[in-house]
Amino acid sequence: MYFDEFTIGQRFEIGPVSLTLEEIKRFAAQYDPLPIHLDNAFASNTPYGGIIASGFHTLCAIWSQWVGTGIVHNEVIGGLGIDYLNWTAPVRPNDQLSGIVEVVDLIPSSKGGRGILVVRVTAYNQNSQEVLNAQVKGLIKASPG
Amino acid sequence: MYFDEFTIGQRFEIGPVSLTLEEIKRFAAQYDPLPIHLDNAFASNTPYGGIIASGFHTLCAIWSQWVGTGIVHNEVIGGLGIDYLNWTAPVRPNDQLSGIVEVVDLIPSSKGGRGILVVRVTAYNQNSQEVLNAQVKGLIKASPG
Repeated sequence: MYFDEFTIGQRFEIGPVSLTLEEIKRFAAQYDPLPIHLDNAFASNTPYGGIIASGFHTLCAIWSQWVGTGIVHNEVIGGLGIDYLNWTAPVRPNDQLSGIVEVVDLIPSSKGGRGILVVRVTAYNQNSQEVLNAQVKGLIKASPG
Repeated sequence: MYFDEFTIGQRFEIGPVSLTLEEIKRFAAQYDPLPIHLDNAFASNTPYGGIIASGFHTLCAIWSQWVGTGIVHNEVIGGLGIDYLNWTAPVRPNDQLSGIVEVVDLIPSSKGGRGILVVRVTAYNQNSQEVLNAQVKGLIKASPG
C-alpha cells in the first residue's frame, strides 16, 4: 500500500509468532548475550523463574509479522526511527505473540511523492497480557502519477 | 557493574562491527523482509544504489557490542524500553560501525536494591557519519549489602 492509501486509525492484525528456547538463546548469543537470556541455571534463580527473550528479539519477531503481511513492501523507502518502545511483560519460550498495528499518523513529505507512515505496534501473549508497545516511523512512497 | 557504580556522563566505546551482505540478507529474510534489504536489483534502482541493512539489524548489531563489553552482565534484571531511536543514515554491507554508550540518567527504584540505567547509544560508520542514536532503559541490580 502506498502512503496515500493509508488512513489514520486503520488497524491490522499480526501474528501469531512464538520463540522457542533454542531461538531465544541463538538470538541472545548473537545480539544480547546476557545470562537472563542464555543461562538456564542463572535465569531459574530470578523472579522470572527461567529464561526470557531479549526485548530486541521480541521487537524483531513482532516486526517480522508486520512486514510479513506484505501491506508495505516495494513502497518502503527506509526506516526513520522509533518514537518510543516499552517492554511491558517478559516473553518466555513458546509464548504465542499476536498484535495490532495501528496507523497513528501520516506525515506528507515536503519533497512530494512520499510521506512518513507512523504506526503503533502493540503485542500480546496468549494470556492477552501486553508484552510490548512501540511507535515506529518509516518513509514510504505515494502512489505514482 | 552495579547500578551504584555508574555515574551520569560516563562514556564507553563500542565496536567496531560490520555486517556482510549475506548477514544483512539473512537477518532481513527473518525479521524485516523488504526489497531494500533483500533484492539486489530492486535496491540498485533506489537512491541508495544497493542493499542497505534493516535498521533493526543495525540496532541489534550495535547493542551486541555494548552487551559484549560485559560492563553489565549478571546485574541486568531486564530491559524496560527505548525512549527514542533515530536511524540517521543508511548502513551498507561491510560498513565499519563503532559507537559510544553514554550514561544519561540513573533512576533509583522505590523498591530498593536496583535502579534504572538510562544510556544513549550513538553509532557511526567508517566515515564518522552517524547512523543511529537511541536512548535505552534497563533495570539493573545495586551492589549487594
